[in-house]
Amino acid sequence: MRNTVGWQAEGPSTTLRRTPLKRRDLRPDDLAVRVEYCGVCHSDLHALSVTGEEGGQPLVPGHEFTGVVTETGSAVTGFAAGDPVAVGNIVDSCGECAMCRAGQENFCHAFPTLTYNGTDRHDGSTTLGGYSREYVVRDRFAYPLPADLDPAGAAPLLCAGITVWEPLRALGVGPGSRVAVAGLGGLGHLAVKIAVALGADTSVISRSPDKADDARRLGARSLIVSTDPERMAGARDRFDVVIDTISSPHDLGPYLRLVALDGTLSVLGHLGPVTVQATDLLVGRKKLSSAGSGGRPATAAMLDFCARHGITADIELLPSARVNEALDRLRRNDVRYRFVLDMSDLD
Amino acid sequence: MRNTVGWQAEGPSTTLRRTPLKRRDLRPDDLAVRVEYCGVCHSDLHALSVTGEEGGQPLVPGHEFTGVVTETGSAVTGFAAGDPVAVGNIVDSCGECAMCRAGQENFCHAFPTLTYNGTDRHDGSTTLGGYSREYVVRDRFAYPLPADLDPAGAAPLLCAGITVWEPLRALGVGPGSRVAVAGLGGLGHLAVKIAVALGADTSVISRSPDKADDARRLGARSLIVSTDPERMAGARDRFDVVIDTISSPHDLGPYLRLVALDGTLSVLGHLGPVTVQATDLLVGRKKLSSAGSGGRPATAAMLDFCARHGITADIELLPSARVNEALDRLRRNDVRYRFVLDMSDLD
Repeated sequence: MRNTVGWQAEGPSTTLRRTPLKRRDLRPDDLAVRVEYCGVCHSDLHALSVTGEEGGQPLVPGHEFTGVVTETGSAVTGFAAGDPVAVGNIVDSCGECAMCRAGQENFCHAFPTLTYNGTDRHDGSTTLGGYSREYVVRDRFAYPLPADLDPAGAAPLLCAGITVWEPLRALGVGPGSRVAVAGLGGLGHLAVKIAVALGADTSVISRSPDKADDARRLGARSLIVSTDPERMAGARDRFDVVIDTISSPHDLGPYLRLVALDGTLSVLGHLGPVTVQATDLLVGRKKLSSAGSGGRPATAAMLDFCARHGITADIELLPSARVNEALDRLRRNDVRYRFVLDMSDLD
Repeated sequence: MRNTVGWQAEGPSTTLRRTPLKRRDLRPDDLAVRVEYCGVCHSDLHALSVTGEEGGQPLVPGHEFTGVVTETGSAVTGFAAGDPVAVGNIVDSCGECAMCRAGQENFCHAFPTLTYNGTDRHDGSTTLGGYSREYVVRDRFAYPLPADLDPAGAAPLLCAGITVWEPLRALGVGPGSRVAVAGLGGLGHLAVKIAVALGADTSVISRSPDKADDARRLGARSLIVSTDPERMAGARDRFDVVIDTISSPHDLGPYLRLVALDGTLSVLGHLGPVTVQATDLLVGRKKLSSAGSGGRPATAAMLDFCARHGITADIELLPSARVNEALDRLRRNDVRYRFVLDMSDLD
């Protein structure tokens, strides 16, 4: 086993503590990655709260990180020590089912191996995430990090970025599309940047009128204040695609009413049960979808697109020792727009 | 006013009684139609139960009928006395909003005037439906009935037919599409006929294995028994479009799991609140939609398509005096596949 160190919670405590960790010895198709930057995702908060309530395995969160290859397994040909790489929230899949064969490893019928709190397909161990100085990953699930991308700002692309990329691409967003992004946070601000770069006429829907300047700076045409009934009514049926990144449970009706004929509301931020009135779909022949993560081809395409368009996340970079502060502030939505942990303080 | 007769309920009674009715004098753009055949729709049951519970206006159901023009208003040019026509569940709309201008009068922003229990846009009266010997309708909302179509079997096309036509067309069903129809009733059997005629590889999902012969006779490849977990698991991710015509509340999860990557589950049969797990949409990038009714261009196109392909509903034709028996049997799903009332007994 390999020795490293990371930030770990052991239930019922949800406080992350600096803890020595073991990583597996490299298999033939493994890479050892020195983690440089790891984004802090809402899913990390959720996983911590589950650990706090239910106990269970020690938890090391983190599933959007960038770093540098330090060592390669004997069969690895695509990477060499020194290569900058990025890793997202999936680190393995069966490789044989219809979804894997279609390049949608995130929908693997045998369930993909998650970057943390997943179960390794070979030794049955629980995966430990990227809030750590080293990660060992199967080569197929590491992506070359384009040289043009700042590695700290690029880390959140691997979860937040691909999560918004998937529905924008699947729904055919491009020049002429009318897109609204509800919620301007980690997911939302990347949805705006990517939609704008795809050529869409993009608006933001937010409770916070004070985000209007930010929305425009990100490339949006306007900000619609969701608590203003007149503005919301004026935007009825206006958008081909509404990307809903709001992380708390909320009524989808007002957002469905903004969707144009044959358009789609894609719910990304809140992944529990979702209730809609069938008539809110019926009237205007609207569709409801969701998204999260992406397969290998889409992730590589997203990174390439972001490199060509100079897109990274707007981040607040903190030494990893301040991880608990970052999580507290994220819980209060007090971040513009993504925390990224600098792991160099773990040496 | 014009005198006619029809089948009316007055709350709290939900029994329909033969009752003299008034129809308006013809406006310049009105047609008087002698109703020959009127289908019995699940919505009629729903409207009757609301009348039974809440009282309110006297109710004459019926919103899918065929008949013959007997008189035309002074400005009517497209119809003449003697023309066979069909009328559906919308008899007027504002004509000016974006939806009306797009030929989606069924989504009129000012709300379309429903064929019964609607509010007339001119005199504010409550509309009385097609369980009646005469109906007066604005000419734009009557459709020439193609000569090739049996007028009794064609009546259900005006509600059940257009309701399944809309999602099948909007979702691009054609040769090569894989379609499943859940529930083989009034909506479902027309969905199968139309999907097959559109060239789709069509299956039926039903609780009732004894409908397998019927499914095949309608053109379906096979019937998947929904209570057989193995058959349902074997059909996972198999269909581009699943048309759910089940009229009672039910878990959508098992049906979403049958939808293929980027496919759609369209819920037509049950129009209350609909709950899905966001992850059931997320995994496989699936979409949820609904549908009901259609605009004027789609309704005309549907009638033309059905005439070319010889599609009418499989009906059980009853004298209109047996309307209460028909409603009782429909409540128990005891009909293959649509009751149609013959109004000639009202003379």
